[in-house]
Amino acid sequence: MSELRKDPVISRWVIIAPERSFRPHFKTGEVIDGKQETNCPFCGGNEQVTPPEILAYGPPDRKPNTPGWQVRVIPNKFPALKVEGELSRWGIGLLDKVNGIGAHEVIVETPDHKKQLCDLPLEHIALILKAWKERLTDLDRDDRLRYALVFKNKGDEAGASISHSHSQIIATPITPNLIKQELISSKEYYSQKERCIFCDYMFQEIADEERVVYQDEHFVIISTFASRFPYEVWILPREHSADYISITDVAVNSLASVLKGLLVGFREILKDPPYNLVLHTAPLRTPRPGYWLTIEKDFHWHIEIFPRMTRVAGFEWGTGLYINPVSPEEASLTLRNAFVDFGQ
Amino acid sequence: MSELRKDPVISRWVIIAPERSFRPHFKTGEVIDGKQETNCPFCGGNEQVTPPEILAYGPPDRKPNTPGWQVRVIPNKFPALKVEGELSRWGIGLLDKVNGIGAHEVIVETPDHKKQLCDLPLEHIALILKAWKERLTDLDRDDRLRYALVFKNKGDEAGASISHSHSQIIATPITPNLIKQELISSKEYYSQKERCIFCDYMFQEIADEERVVYQDEHFVIISTFASRFPYEVWILPREHSADYISITDVAVNSLASVLKGLLVGFREILKDPPYNLVLHTAPLRTPRPGYWLTIEKDFHWHIEIFPRMTRVAGFEWGTGLYINPVSPEEASLTLRNAFVDFGQ
Repeated sequence: MSELRKDPVISRWVIIAPERSFRPHFKTGEVIDGKQETNCPFCGGNEQVTPPEILAYGPPDRKPNTPGWQVRVIPNKFPALKVEGELSRWGIGLLDKVNGIGAHEVIVETPDHKKQLCDLPLEHIALILKAWKERLTDLDRDDRLRYALVFKNKGDEAGASISHSHSQIIATPITPNLIKQELISSKEYYSQKERCIFCDYMFQEIADEERVVYQDEHFVIISTFASRFPYEVWILPREHSADYISITDVAVNSLASVLKGLLVGFREILKDPPYNLVLHTAPLRTPRPGYWLTIEKDFHWHIEIFPRMTRVAGFEWGTGLYINPVSPEEASLTLRNAFVDFGQ
Repeated sequence: MSELRKDPVISRWVIIAPERSFRPHFKTGEVIDGKQETNCPFCGGNEQVTPPEILAYGPPDRKPNTPGWQVRVIPNKFPALKVEGELSRWGIGLLDKVNGIGAHEVIVETPDHKKQLCDLPLEHIALILKAWKERLTDLDRDDRLRYALVFKNKGDEAGASISHSHSQIIATPITPNLIKQELISSKEYYSQKERCIFCDYMFQEIADEERVVYQDEHFVIISTFASRFPYEVWILPREHSADYISITDVAVNSLASVLKGLLVGFREILKDPPYNLVLHTAPLRTPRPGYWLTIEKDFHWHIEIFPRMTRVAGFEWGTGLYINPVSPEEASLTLRNAFVDFGQ
């Protein structure tokens, strides 16, 4: 079984997951003679190859684990953390451990092997965004868990091991470092200013205009001021909201269109780049009622997307200081021109 | 010119360096017909192709920028930060900037294109380690600079753009985040316990034995408890020391042998893996006399080395929580058996 361990010096958690070493290497999923690859576990028709589904959207008369679905959520076959078992935390001298309890799910975004996320119709993308919400809502009930990250790896260079379009959720029994840093910073800012730091930052960018890629009634896309990676962007809900779980159906539709417009632009201008997408939302709160008392006010959910076009090397690993060869202003200009407006 | 920017939410610095986009892609440096590749800028005989050297070790009668050197330090041709100019720091609302003043140097480890670091004789490796020390000592005199990181990228996957064996130094006008976290954690620990956290951690590992790869009179190699990457190790000086600059000649010789023994083991057991090496030493102190008052006691220099065998993906980028499929105990056992003892 895997376990979580904390670095004694800088309190950085890691997951030691020996079972992950058995997962497949990247599969390109070539389409041979126009036919869909048959041995892809995520393809429609191959439902029996995967662990039983957790959730699926499809016609009401469809039986579980049969074809006909549009979006399907399954447990990861090579999970970093497992949902079964009792949580235990212990320490030996300076060393801290938690056993590998958590969740690791795959959201298969379409039964069609040949479709990328940005190829799907808006209503289909909205279903995926709803699946994220539904799974987060469910995981929030498990009082062993502290945080759940929705993320997507697209392409080999971005760390995907299967090319069929999918996103993932990993829920952890600890609050991961980067999330903790965002929570602590935004809490501190709020305690000083009585305002959300994300709202303040977003308003400054909107006033400044230079790094705004796109905005509509619900969302703003910003080529962030201190982007780690070329063409990194954040999508922020314009109206303050700490938790993705509370997103409305109207906002989901708007997010689908904003996301599609951006990703189609990426594909066009950056030649179908590998990319990562992460959703930073409030931590799961069931286990700690009252602990994050002010979180509704001080945190602000957002999506971070970054094409993976540069190699991260010793300097970055040694310092946490990233070298980005494309200025966010240049990136913003490029992406603004490439963005495709699917808004109705 | 490049600039440093701070993320308004989590205070993470980045370097925006548009000039870096012009640097060459990875050159394999193939050896054709047994002859050394002629167009490699780091090869002996090609001294005129590089910017003028900063330092070189060779015979006393050698003229600068001519052949005959064993180790040669030159400015990086595509620097992330430049040494010329006045430092300025400014802010606009929530956004903070520093102009791109710093240093970016390349330590060419041998004139021989075909030699890897671990192929070199111990005395030659000791020269490289002395060059690191000499450059750090010199950079310490520049009162615009806060930190200098020595690092090495070996192989394409580890981010090297030239295959000829080399290491690098980047000096920055800010203290990078990861370094700051180590400094703050170790300072806090010292203020509570009056002991160095690295010493305490090392003693616990030595007592425990399980994760100790190798130890001699001067150094300990540990497969760290919370390794981010498979086969990640730390090399720590057994005797407490905050600053690599104060390393003795005896210790340099010992470090050369420990490093060679480890790297030869890596090549043997992990099939010549790409790897990164970083040296974490005390920050440059000239600019801030008295600021890090206790640093001699609370910080402990060390080298971190990690083969790059896994892809870092959305989950890691989104959380700072790394998934490592090889347990440090298994890694330690493997590396202990592979380590080659070059000690005299």
